[in-house]
Amino acid sequence: MKYIIGHISPDTDTICSALVYEDYLKQKNIEAKAYALGHLNNETKFVFKKFNVKEPEHIHEIPKNSEIILLDHNEETQSINNINDLDIVEIIDHHKVKLETDKPIRIHIEPLGSSCSIIAKKYFKSGREISPQNASLLLAGIISDTLHFRSPTTTDQDKELTEKLNKIAQIEDLEKFSLEMFNAKSDLGNIDTEELIKLDYKVFDFAEGQKFGIGVMETTDKEFGLKRKDEIVKKLKEIKEKDNLQGIYFMIIDILEEEGYTLCADEEDSKLFIKLFNTEDQNGVLFVDNVVSRKKQIMPIFQQYFNK
Amino acid sequence: MKYIIGHISPDTDTICSALVYEDYLKQKNIEAKAYALGHLNNETKFVFKKFNVKEPEHIHEIPKNSEIILLDHNEETQSINNINDLDIVEIIDHHKVKLETDKPIRIHIEPLGSSCSIIAKKYFKSGREISPQNASLLLAGIISDTLHFRSPTTTDQDKELTEKLNKIAQIEDLEKFSLEMFNAKSDLGNIDTEELIKLDYKVFDFAEGQKFGIGVMETTDKEFGLKRKDEIVKKLKEIKEKDNLQGIYFMIIDILEEEGYTLCADEEDSKLFIKLFNTEDQNGVLFVDNVVSRKKQIMPIFQQYFNK
Repeated sequence: MKYIIGHISPDTDTICSALVYEDYLKQKNIEAKAYALGHLNNETKFVFKKFNVKEPEHIHEIPKNSEIILLDHNEETQSINNINDLDIVEIIDHHKVKLETDKPIRIHIEPLGSSCSIIAKKYFKSGREISPQNASLLLAGIISDTLHFRSPTTTDQDKELTEKLNKIAQIEDLEKFSLEMFNAKSDLGNIDTEELIKLDYKVFDFAEGQKFGIGVMETTDKEFGLKRKDEIVKKLKEIKEKDNLQGIYFMIIDILEEEGYTLCADEEDSKLFIKLFNTEDQNGVLFVDNVVSRKKQIMPIFQQYFNK
Repeated sequence: MKYIIGHISPDTDTICSALVYEDYLKQKNIEAKAYALGHLNNETKFVFKKFNVKEPEHIHEIPKNSEIILLDHNEETQSINNINDLDIVEIIDHHKVKLETDKPIRIHIEPLGSSCSIIAKKYFKSGREISPQNASLLLAGIISDTLHFRSPTTTDQDKELTEKLNKIAQIEDLEKFSLEMFNAKSDLGNIDTEELIKLDYKVFDFAEGQKFGIGVMETTDKEFGLKRKDEIVKKLKEIKEKDNLQGIYFMIIDILEEEGYTLCADEEDSKLFIKLFNTEDQNGVLFVDNVVSRKKQIMPIFQQYFNK
């Protein structure tokens, strides 16, 4: 039995791609099961409720030497804790790569807008049948990761796949559906500050001893984050120290306006961000216009800086 | 224009997969050209002569910022010198992975017996047409890398693809063809000792400061290598020092008997090999039975040792 896992701080794309890939493998008579590495966010919960799908089980550790399939990530820092005791047999992803394996394994990485796009492509290419429920989950993953085509990570293929999937899913108004998803994602109730930061949080290992944490809050209600600025900054300082990070950022992304508001742990992190993104400190907030994608607009700039 | 390149010390699989992939991309209206990073070996030359195919141009440096496609390798140490100035846009390979990218790129890695198998699969899956000439080149790559199915890297898919390809290529006796290839590979004339070591030579970066060079000579005439033992060992010492390697090995693989004879630069390298492969020193030669594959039988043992 193979374990299919998405990344920690799971989002809609990682959960839906893993779950639908379980079905794809089942159709190939390969026994596999999808698990979530943590609680689903409110957007993902909304999607599962809307389409009447059972949420995948949570898992925190996988038995030693088990075979695992990584969906929507490939870096150790974003995966299950005991990954070094496990046998990675396959990777499907749409992110940059930082990877070392002992032996040749099956890897399919494509620079599409979502991992759900890659899974959808696999169905269409192989002619396997997609149920309306699975088509809906794949659509949700594409819409979530591309911010319904607002993100610069969007490709023509994502749009074509969305059209083909919706012939099966039959969602009447996709823009309305996407706004419902974004509002669900923005409805964070009385979320605890650390949970807020870690909602969509990744640690990147840019170079030896240069670990950076970058959390993103994609929202239609930026004030929810901005008004909690002081407690967020305090918590960022704590996480930075506890996890021995070189830097840590929390970016509030206004999905509809396509704007980013970044909070930093301290002066040092703030200085680096201002330098890299040519912005300024406005009362503890670093504003960047037209920046919505950590992957396409934030990460490459950090990566280039550290590769110099 | 994209540059398609195989690894340095090119072999039949790396050259044939790159060249045929040029045709595949052409059929997709993508402009690309295959190049060889060094001289073709005698086996590859035999194949090109037999099927009347023009050898790809050699190249040693590619203009800065050019787009490149890596065939049959993914590690920097096995690629073109100025790889850090180039833009890797795609990787097709069947080896273990050691890779870091700045951005998401297209990666297709599959644990098949050869890169030519992956290219063949792409044609059959997409329904694109393979010319008899290209089918012959793909067959040559599969047969060369799997030692005509003798290597433990061989998969059922390699055998199936060989059968499908030969319906197009129409090579009358594949076993006879493979022996012709192996004999051509073994016919090394008055080759210089360093060239002999570097015929199929790769440097692996096992860990910080733990670079190992491993050269392989697959042959039907092991005596050709064994009788030059003393000069080979002397040259191994020189390369080890010049390239600042932690260790260096030269393995003479008897294709037909499926046996390996390893030569080492010094006592230190010899000790490690004896420990890892549970063998003994017989007059400066370390014999291992049933070991023909660097990738499947040698590399994983080194890798595991250094990951401990």
